[in-house]
Amino acid sequence: MEYRVSAPDVLRDPLAVPEKLLMGPGPSNAPPRVLEAMARPILGHLHPETLKIMDDIKAGVRYLFQTNNAATFCLSASGHGGMEATLCNLLEDGDVVLIGHTGHWGDRAADMATRYGADVRLVRASQGSSLALPEIRRAIETHRPSVLFLTQGESSTGVRQGLEGVGALCRAHDCLLVVDTVASLGGTPFHMDAWEVDAAYTGSQKVLGAPPGITPISFNHRAVERYRRRHTKVKVYYWDMFLVGDYWGCFGRPRIYHHTISSTLLYGLREAIAMACEESLPSLIARHQDCAKRLHDGLRAMGLELYAQERDRLPTVTTIHVPAGLDWLQVSQYAMKTYLVEISGGLGPTAGQVFRIGLMGQNATSERVDRVLQVFRDSIKAVKPDFAFPRSASKM
Amino acid sequence: MEYRVSAPDVLRDPLAVPEKLLMGPGPSNAPPRVLEAMARPILGHLHPETLKIMDDIKAGVRYLFQTNNAATFCLSASGHGGMEATLCNLLEDGDVVLIGHTGHWGDRAADMATRYGADVRLVRASQGSSLALPEIRRAIETHRPSVLFLTQGESSTGVRQGLEGVGALCRAHDCLLVVDTVASLGGTPFHMDAWEVDAAYTGSQKVLGAPPGITPISFNHRAVERYRRRHTKVKVYYWDMFLVGDYWGCFGRPRIYHHTISSTLLYGLREAIAMACEESLPSLIARHQDCAKRLHDGLRAMGLELYAQERDRLPTVTTIHVPAGLDWLQVSQYAMKTYLVEISGGLGPTAGQVFRIGLMGQNATSERVDRVLQVFRDSIKAVKPDFAFPRSASKM
Repeated sequence: MEYRVSAPDVLRDPLAVPEKLLMGPGPSNAPPRVLEAMARPILGHLHPETLKIMDDIKAGVRYLFQTNNAATFCLSASGHGGMEATLCNLLEDGDVVLIGHTGHWGDRAADMATRYGADVRLVRASQGSSLALPEIRRAIETHRPSVLFLTQGESSTGVRQGLEGVGALCRAHDCLLVVDTVASLGGTPFHMDAWEVDAAYTGSQKVLGAPPGITPISFNHRAVERYRRRHTKVKVYYWDMFLVGDYWGCFGRPRIYHHTISSTLLYGLREAIAMACEESLPSLIARHQDCAKRLHDGLRAMGLELYAQERDRLPTVTTIHVPAGLDWLQVSQYAMKTYLVEISGGLGPTAGQVFRIGLMGQNATSERVDRVLQVFRDSIKAVKPDFAFPRSASKM
Repeated sequence: MEYRVSAPDVLRDPLAVPEKLLMGPGPSNAPPRVLEAMARPILGHLHPETLKIMDDIKAGVRYLFQTNNAATFCLSASGHGGMEATLCNLLEDGDVVLIGHTGHWGDRAADMATRYGADVRLVRASQGSSLALPEIRRAIETHRPSVLFLTQGESSTGVRQGLEGVGALCRAHDCLLVVDTVASLGGTPFHMDAWEVDAAYTGSQKVLGAPPGITPISFNHRAVERYRRRHTKVKVYYWDMFLVGDYWGCFGRPRIYHHTISSTLLYGLREAIAMACEESLPSLIARHQDCAKRLHDGLRAMGLELYAQERDRLPTVTTIHVPAGLDWLQVSQYAMKTYLVEISGGLGPTAGQVFRIGLMGQNATSERVDRVLQVFRDSIKAVKPDFAFPRSASKM
């Protein structure tokens, strides 16, 4: 048989990877220790050394989520995998899911849950705000959902959803509480057990500074019990909690092959989690909050207006109203081209309306806050020389 | 709020990754160029450099599959993702799928397709054999499937499924042909366009020697058309062909965010594909076939019996009957402990019945064939000193 398709010339060029400062909503820059770990040799998916690394990661994830859940593991997928896996493990056809909508991720969860056959209801927060406990209570009483889905860190709007009291409310109404902590974990407190959260997942490439592609997730006994009482199989083999959980050794049964895990990503994630443990959660969170305050003060001094309400502001992703007459895309492109610094635009409901600046992991330092403020100011000035900064900002 | 779960001590130990020779059914050892690439800095999922690397990979995957399909891209998941994505994009509730069963992967595909609501039918090959064209024809005429699923390289049994003529048969019966090439691509010829295969996927961590976690996949115009005529949305957002394909720039529409791809895995895969292109497919395949012959000759000289029929033998994974009275697990464990060489046992229907030796990528060289033969012989001898090798083998 003749070979009709030739090898492409483009692959003869060397791999080109510039070093950038990733101050968008993620991924963040991975520290050298994480990058170096990923150049280590490949291991098999059932080798004892691999299983040991997985056990280390499980222990670390339990600390990060502040949980003792046995069913704590990772999915071999991006953060979207966490959203899919929580929804499809806990929902069956016709089940009512209530989605707290504070931005783009609410829409995404609604799309996924619809595909899984659920009866999807939304409760929408007002712009730039989170949902207050009474709003959540009313929505639960109205819709009587079997699952409530909330996004703790809504990266499209920069809104942080408060969670205290929601778990108890859900238990009183026989509802499971699922929380997306992709953009928030490590930057703001999250107490899975104390807050009675039934299922949660996070992103590896945000505060943790590991590469994307592997997603920590945890289910408590109520979520496991809901799974056990399913009438139908989970619709996706790849997301099936018991199958993945058995591979991760979560249920006291023999560890069996489910899929071929990426040892490379395990190495990177393990080192990233180890660094978070060394720093400790309270310090990690305080560092992100301090840096966010410095960033917000700097932005205000430039005369810019933040999008999220002050009480609901996420430390890890800051959203800034695009001032009238300014082309956000030009600013973002100028910052990248001139300084190799990432400053992002909006996403979903905030597309074209906001800038987004991320402070995550290694990028949450005073130096990098000052750097991104400087780059932001210079880029706005370059794109729109007549932009009217207040006097305090022009002295920066 | 009090922090009740402490940071685990295990994460204070340094990351331990031994260097092993991976002569099982995969993953194989990644070459240094691939490993070094993965220590490069993280890039954002929509940065132009990332999109360029994705374009390079697309071009390389088209060459590897020997296809001009526009809808050629990768999934951010292990090879299982390829199986899930082909099935759930091309099947709707009640559709008949016919699965050619030559081992474990047929069972896995049946499990997945059942979860997606398909009407699953199996046609089983006899032990150690592939399905002949007349058997496939009869099964198609009997079941009238809308999708036929075949595994070209059945890694559990070491059987290679012939594909020539199957595509035409499927077209004549308005059936789509899906082929799993996870364990075969690059080790045995595969001509996606010439053989009229409608959807195919492969593994990154086998012949290519990239890390697991990213899965090349391709759909032709017939598969895309089937997607277009769906009555219902694809059940899984993460596997949705049009959403992932748009992110990969396959359909001439603007590239939009679908998920956060792992730049690390892209770097590794790009370099692995570049190396395959530099060697060329015909040379790569010839190298695997030559090494397989050397391995098979060596095993026969040891008096061992191969599991797969000679005409159906896969070059990349060789299955060997476990001789009576020999404990396969002891042999495998001895080889690993003493020599850091991986020799695997069976999987699914061959569990406990066979050894599996893989020759993939960098491990398909005469030196490594001789090494694994030596280690295999010595391990058998160590575990069972009275094992009766033929005279020719004891001279090795």
